[in-house]
Amino acid sequence: MTHTTTLNHVDLEAVAALTEAIRREPEKGATTWRAEVEWRGGFRSEARIRDFAPVPSDEPAGLGGSDSAPNPVEQLLAALGNCLAVGYAANATAAGITLRGLRIDVEGDLDLHTFLGLRPGHAGYEAIRARVEIDADAPVEDLQALHEKVVATSPVGHTLAREIPLEIRLA
Amino acid sequence: MTHTTTLNHVDLEAVAALTEAIRREPEKGATTWRAEVEWRGGFRSEARIRDFAPVPSDEPAGLGGSDSAPNPVEQLLAALGNCLAVGYAANATAAGITLRGLRIDVEGDLDLHTFLGLRPGHAGYEAIRARVEIDADAPVEDLQALHEKVVATSPVGHTLAREIPLEIRLA
Repeated sequence: MTHTTTLNHVDLEAVAALTEAIRREPEKGATTWRAEVEWRGGFRSEARIRDFAPVPSDEPAGLGGSDSAPNPVEQLLAALGNCLAVGYAANATAAGITLRGLRIDVEGDLDLHTFLGLRPGHAGYEAIRARVEIDADAPVEDLQALHEKVVATSPVGHTLAREIPLEIRLA
Repeated sequence: MTHTTTLNHVDLEAVAALTEAIRREPEKGATTWRAEVEWRGGFRSEARIRDFAPVPSDEPAGLGGSDSAPNPVEQLLAALGNCLAVGYAANATAAGITLRGLRIDVEGDLDLHTFLGLRPGHAGYEAIRARVEIDADAPVEDLQALHEKVVATSPVGHTLAREIPLEIRLA
């Protein structure tokens, strides 16, 4: 038996153990994630997640902010890129592919008219594009199969590409 | 004329100037935002946005990560909370409402079966909920009107609640 635990520094045994636990007890697959956001004045805010240091958010000066941190729509693109990175690392490791490097450029188009109250409609991204550069010694068809697996299983990717029931309520 | 520029520390004049510029030249409303993600081994990665310090990402140990930072699906919830905070701050200021505090708790339910390859389907959030606490001296109907305006104009909120064309391609 080949030990692939440390390939790409991915703890494949932890992933396998979780997968097996959820296969045995499907209700263990149901997870809930949280973030607590506190407004800091102007367009600045901070998000607290578990015990990690608060992550700051702001808007560029042109949008009325003090430009001290990435803004929320940029954070959304970062979340997608980071999610895809986990997907490629996990699935490459499961397939025995050694990654030398991985870089994901994400961009999205957003028209400000609705956000600024100039017209009703869709205030969000009109389109989001991710361009993935994989540096690995693997046949192109293996990288293509890896890619397809990642696209088929990306939690953030699927959240963006589908309608998600969203409830926003005043306490 | 009342100067409301510093109400809630929001630079309302910058927002008004941008709104007026886009009203005059609608093509100025079209914006593109970017994030560059670099894999750092295991499930760690870093997102670079403009000239800000790279923001780290990781997964909890139970998911095979080294638990050094919030994970991508948590970052997505943070982006929503931060976006709503900008929306409440901007629209409260425009309405002349002084905010003493604002806190937004966001949570989302995600079933891991698809992410772990145990079944095809939807790997993303099944539902996302945000609970908004506003501390302000304003009649409840003004806060309700504020809330409705924010929900109707939230870029991240609309991106999550709608199907967004998403292209993920290998370079």
